[in-house]
Formats: sequence, structure tokens, C-alpha cells
Amino acid sequence: MTAPQQAVTVLGLGQMGSALAAALLDRGHPTTVWNRTPDKAGPLVERGARAAATPQEAIAASPLVIACVLDYEALHTVVDPVADALRGRTLVNLTSGSPEQAREAVAWAGSLGAGYLDGAIMTTPPGVGDPAMMFLYSGSEEVFETHRPTLAALGDPLHLGADPGLASLYDAALLGLMWSTMTGWLHGTALVGAEGTPAAAFTPVALRWLTAVSGFLTRYAPQVDAGHYPGDDATVDVQIAAIDHLIHAAGARGVDNALPELLKAMMEKASAAGHGQDSYAAVIEVLRPASRAEG
Amino acid sequence: MTAPQQAVTVLGLGQMGSALAAALLDRGHPTTVWNRTPDKAGPLVERGARAAATPQEAIAASPLVIACVLDYEALHTVVDPVADALRGRTLVNLTSGSPEQAREAVAWAGSLGAGYLDGAIMTTPPGVGDPAMMFLYSGSEEVFETHRPTLAALGDPLHLGADPGLASLYDAALLGLMWSTMTGWLHGTALVGAEGTPAAAFTPVALRWLTAVSGFLTRYAPQVDAGHYPGDDATVDVQIAAIDHLIHAAGARGVDNALPELLKAMMEKASAAGHGQDSYAAVIEVLRPASRAEG
Repeated sequence: MTAPQQAVTVLGLGQMGSALAAALLDRGHPTTVWNRTPDKAGPLVERGARAAATPQEAIAASPLVIACVLDYEALHTVVDPVADALRGRTLVNLTSGSPEQAREAVAWAGSLGAGYLDGAIMTTPPGVGDPAMMFLYSGSEEVFETHRPTLAALGDPLHLGADPGLASLYDAALLGLMWSTMTGWLHGTALVGAEGTPAAAFTPVALRWLTAVSGFLTRYAPQVDAGHYPGDDATVDVQIAAIDHLIHAAGARGVDNALPELLKAMMEKASAAGHGQDSYAAVIEVLRPASRAEG
Repeated sequence: MTAPQQAVTVLGLGQMGSALAAALLDRGHPTTVWNRTPDKAGPLVERGARAAATPQEAIAASPLVIACVLDYEALHTVVDPVADALRGRTLVNLTSGSPEQAREAVAWAGSLGAGYLDGAIMTTPPGVGDPAMMFLYSGSEEVFETHRPTLAALGDPLHLGADPGLASLYDAALLGLMWSTMTGWLHGTALVGAEGTPAAAFTPVALRWLTAVSGFLTRYAPQVDAGHYPGDDATVDVQIAAIDHLIHAAGARGVDNALPELLKAMMEKASAAGHGQDSYAAVIEVLRPASRAEG
């Protein structure tokens, strides 16, 4: 005999909301779904979900309500008219937004007598349900611990801290890392591609290189926290010389160089600020707010 | 009884050249070293290296000569006056340069009756000797296979192909990926740091996220080769909406946004070119030479 799985409601059945509901159904959670346009519920009902006719009915169906809608405005449009239904329940908000919106939402949920967690999904819809994928949560640790077993149906739940804005903040920071990495990879792929190397040949080498780069980040993180950047391995000035090789090679092959030109300009700014003999981590000094860079 | 290790000469004892010589000594290779300023040889001689008085004596000492000097001009300054000494030997050139310089060098070495490999070291000096670190080589496969056991003392030797320019080309492409990734990480670190999260707390999450990003690159590589970018997971237009969250959150905290602004502009260019509903891999179409983008 195992304990019955907790009942869960999912509000919003876009690609991501549908994937969340499907993962809950896969783990045997009684799952109630609602969407603004009801036809999205069809495939989930076939898999055992119950489709609620109204947001109120949906919220009333479960002690845990997971929302994944377009934005916070859409969330309030859906929930505000039936907000009293949230009393005594927990809202886990996986809607994308800003740290400020998350902080407003926790106050709003508190005024309704509801528990609240803000969350960010660090995978695409096909990755939902994979325990290797990170789901970031922030807000009350007690609320998080209560619902952790259910949230584990969606991916690996990580609690970042009590400040409800942390999930959004990390989400933005991690997506920025993703776009930078993907664009750097595309630039390199375009460069080797100009000489006939397929992406499928370059990419395994690039992925292996990323594990070495991960090692550099691990080495640089304490440098950032200390504000001290010993350039024993490779200095900013050495990197400035090296990036000219890239800019020359890519430019000669007609590859757009806006990205490496910007990176070079940032390195030069760091060098001009006195970090030429420091490690690459010192480039954070020209990214940080001025008051910190001077601190 | 094991076979005696091959004798190797290292020309150039900067940080990297010294690390190469040290790794060879650690594996028991009789190692001859030479540097323009002879004092750099001291620590290596203490570890068992033989210091040659001239480049000619250094080259004559070993069938395999590894060069790691400032640039190709420095290499020619050192080797040209004594080039005849290279006849019948192999030069492995780990000096940074362009694919064009590597192609010229293989012709030059051929005219001297010397074997030639061009190489790129994908680690910093402290990583030399670690078998997890990639050393990229291009040029004659036969020469590579002959010297692979010796080159394995330095790191994991990968042969990219017969075109001697490939090592330099990959080197440039991979360093570009590194700078993009490191700068994206620094930007994210500055963003979460503005709210008091230390780099040491953010970085393990960022590294784990990079493994998910690696999965995206693996999925996108065949899309690039096919020139077809199905946006099932996340479209360029969805990413454009999402990067505004980052730009807003970072801008509100005084973090320099030149990098995400550029990335957004590239996405918008891809969307304007008709790739709004495609995956992020379609951004390569605005990076590639125009003739290919239209192909």
C-alpha cells in the first residue's frame, strides 16, 4: 500500500502547462486542469485528467495549484475574480516574470491566506518529468518542503531561498548564460562550417571543451566573490591578443563578428580599468553596477 | 622492461612551453629545452631537462621538436637560420596562429624534408599533462599516429584531419565559445550578485544548467547541418520575449546590458529574416556568410 498521491491543479495549458500536467498524471497524481480555451484540455483528459469548467472549480479541486500562464497579468486576470478560493491552499507560480512581480505575488497570496512559491522551469517542455532537469523555487522553505515530493514529479526541485524573487532572478541569469553560450557555439559553428566542417563534427569537441570551460568558471567563482583575480592561468591582455585571431579568421570567411567584437571591447574596457594582468573573471568589474565596481 | 621514451625537444619556455616540458619530464621523456632567454630553463634543468645552448643544438637533440613560441614570426626567427637541422625530424607546432599560417608552415616544413603537425592546446598551463584536456592536431595522419604516444604525455591528442589549418580554426572557434560562455556567466553572476547572491552559490547551478544547454546544442547541431530548424521546443520569437525579462532585471540593477542587447538584436534579425518560429539554431543564418545564408 502506498499513500495516495496528492491532488494537483494546473492552470494554463500551453506547451509547458500541458507538459506539467502530463508529468503529474504519469506519476499518478489526481490532476485537475483548466485553460482559457478549453480545447487544450482534451489530450490530458484522455490521459486521466479532470477538466474544470471554471478557474474557481479548478482551484477548489486541489490543495496545490500550479499556474503556468503567459505572464503575471494573465495570472491575475484568471485568479483575482476567484481569489478567495485560494485560502488555505498553496499556489506554485511557474509563470515567467520579474523578481519584483514575484515579491508582489507573495504579498498578494499572503493577504488571501494562501501559501506561495515562485518557480522557474529550466528545461523545455519535452524535458518536463526528467529528474535531471532543474526546477528552481523561491519563497517559504516550509511550503517548499511540504510540497517537494509532488514537485519532484516535474523535475529536480531546488529551493534557492526565502526571497521569492530568487527563482526569477536565477532564471534570467541562467537564460542569459544559455543565449551567450548558444550564440558563441553558433559563431564557432559558422566559422568551422565556412571551411566545410559540419556542426555534427564540431559540436562533440565543443561540448567537451565546455566541460573544461566549466572548470574555469569553478576556479573563477571564488575570485569574483573575493574581488581579487589572479591571472596565473591566462590574463585579460593575453585573451585580447587571442581574440584577434578569432576576429581575423571569422572576418576573412565572411562570418558576422558583432559578438567577438563586443567581447573584445569588454576585455579592453577591463584592461583599461587596470585588469590587464588579471584573470578573465575581472571582466565582471565592467559589468557590475558602478558603485560596486568602485567598492 | 619498457621501451625507452622518445626524446623530445621543446622550443620556447613561456608558461605554456615550460608546462609542456614539465609534462614530458614527468612521463620520463629525455627532454631538451631551449628559450631565447636562457634563465627560463633553470627550473626544468633541475627536474632533469637538458638545456641546449642554441636552437640548432636543441633541434639536433631529438627526432620530435615541439615549438610553443609567441607567434609564427617568432618561430621563423628561431628556426629559419637553422632550418636544415629539421631534415628528417618532425616539428609539432603549438604556437597560436591562423589556419593560413598553418598551411604555409606545412609547405615550408615539407620543403625542408621535415614532418609537420599543427596543434592547439585547449587548456591553461596548469592543465597540461591532464589526460582529460584536449590537444587538437591537424596535418598528416601518419605523422600524428607515429607521435601519438608521445603527444599523449601532454593531454588527450585529437586528430582533426589532414588540413593543417583545422587545429587553428577549431582553436579560434572554441575560444570564441569560451569567451561567450564566460561573459554570459559573468553577466548572470553580476545580476544575482546585485541581490546579494555570491558567485559561489550561483555557479554550481549555472554549471548544471550548462549540461542542459549542452543537450540543446546536441539537438541543434543536426538542424544546422540540415539548414532546417524546427522550433518545437522554444522559438526565436519566444526567446526574444524572454530576453526582455533579463534586460529589464539586469538594467534595473545597473548591470551593463551590452551583451544581452546584442544577443536580442541578433535574434530580432533572425526573426526579421523569417526565422521567428524556428529554433534558436536558426540564428546561425544571420552569422553565416551571405552566400550561404541565401543558399
